[in-house]
Amino acid sequence: MKDILFERVYLLGTGLIGGSLALDLRERGLVGRLLGSDVDPVAQAQALELGILDEEAPFDEDTLAGCDLIILSVPVVAIESIIRSGFPPQALITDVGSVKLPLIKAFRESVDSGSSYRYVPGHPIAGDEKSGPTAARAGLFKGARVIITPVEDNDDDVEVIAHMWQRVGSVVEVMDPELHDELFAWVSHLPHMAAYGIVDSVLKKDESWVSFSGGGLRDYTRIASSNPAMWADIAISNRKYLLRAVKDLGVRLGEIEELISAGDREDLVEFFEKIAKIRRKMK
Amino acid sequence: MKDILFERVYLLGTGLIGGSLALDLRERGLVGRLLGSDVDPVAQAQALELGILDEEAPFDEDTLAGCDLIILSVPVVAIESIIRSGFPPQALITDVGSVKLPLIKAFRESVDSGSSYRYVPGHPIAGDEKSGPTAARAGLFKGARVIITPVEDNDDDVEVIAHMWQRVGSVVEVMDPELHDELFAWVSHLPHMAAYGIVDSVLKKDESWVSFSGGGLRDYTRIASSNPAMWADIAISNRKYLLRAVKDLGVRLGEIEELISAGDREDLVEFFEKIAKIRRKMK
Repeated sequence: MKDILFERVYLLGTGLIGGSLALDLRERGLVGRLLGSDVDPVAQAQALELGILDEEAPFDEDTLAGCDLIILSVPVVAIESIIRSGFPPQALITDVGSVKLPLIKAFRESVDSGSSYRYVPGHPIAGDEKSGPTAARAGLFKGARVIITPVEDNDDDVEVIAHMWQRVGSVVEVMDPELHDELFAWVSHLPHMAAYGIVDSVLKKDESWVSFSGGGLRDYTRIASSNPAMWADIAISNRKYLLRAVKDLGVRLGEIEELISAGDREDLVEFFEKIAKIRRKMK
Repeated sequence: MKDILFERVYLLGTGLIGGSLALDLRERGLVGRLLGSDVDPVAQAQALELGILDEEAPFDEDTLAGCDLIILSVPVVAIESIIRSGFPPQALITDVGSVKLPLIKAFRESVDSGSSYRYVPGHPIAGDEKSGPTAARAGLFKGARVIITPVEDNDDDVEVIAHMWQRVGSVVEVMDPELHDELFAWVSHLPHMAAYGIVDSVLKKDESWVSFSGGGLRDYTRIASSNPAMWADIAISNRKYLLRAVKDLGVRLGEIEELISAGDREDLVEFFEKIAKIRRKMK
């Protein structure tokens, strides 16, 4: 017996996150029909071929009015402008953006301009440096955390979206959007900026040296190989918190410089040991 | 038919690198008998049990005089003081330290004080955040680069040590020791310091946030979980070059801050793209 959550879903953006969610929804029989599109015609063709979409359909009012869920799985700057421009009345919208405050701000502006759609901001913590429909796979969200940062007065909608994510194996956590953006500035966006910084340091010093990356640089080049446009969007969208985090890293590096300069082995061991044991705690 | 390179080898330090080399030397029949010791009695017992050592033997003049190769596989500060204190005449010494200049300086001081042993500084680029004899495994060096940074006038000895590493599957590269230390300050030691810095940033901000490490922080906590004492030694031994690299990273992060502040998406995409494509070049 089928347990359909949504009769018609519209997926905007058929990349790793959106594509994987679509595959999961279909595999688990949670969706009747999957419509959608991708701004990139190659990606859109792949999405049809890979069974991410049942049908290509334009992202227009008529189509969207006939869907009971619209998933925005495009870069965060694109989500922001789409949300701002509004949706048909009572449409249920969710997204997968890594930054939430600008999206909620755009939603409120849209509501202030007379829109009456329903929005549940979401952020699945999944994916890596791969991207595109060909990277999508069912099961990507199994055990993954999904953060929902609700706008006011839509507990029922939050429950629907939370249930969807739980049905594809995720652990849903509800979080204040400001806390979300600050937290991810530190644990996700800062590490990516640092990876860019480190690889840039080595490149500017001597480009040929990156081939010696077995000794530590390899992880950074991998992190820094993520989708550049997506990360530019994230950095700009979350710049308030991200700039504070990047500045703080500068301070921490200064402290490490001082410890190394001072050359006190015991102090350095103690400092490194304190950090090393966090990993053991995480397990 | 056996093809023994060394009748008796003394291994000082039975951790990941030394232990793995010992296992490889035995498995490939390149060594007659493996003597050795570890300052840590637990590691030494494990080394005997795991077949890393045939025999525990004191690190003293009598024992060493009877060995045709002595491998120093201990932290780089310990290698430095051991080298400085000298070896029996004509003994052949190699090491696996990640920093080379202080070791070569110690060797020269030892020679100036009348020693006449033979030293081939080596640095296998292998291993990760695991350590100890239980992490050791045959095959660790297969395909790995091993850098040799020769002292003067011992081409024959360099050839012997290079041959040993080649026989366990490594690719040997001869390099000037100053270049070595500067290069590894950037491609290995800097990335480790940055990982400590990033994890420290997050810890100081909010320790509970490290549990959200799926979004980028995870790789850093792994890198920062490496042996703290070993990294303190490396940082202090290579501080001249490492401090320059850490300062440079601060400059690069400042540039990224400016790019984010300016909020020009195209500039940011271009900058990230330039860095992201290095990874693709590496493959």
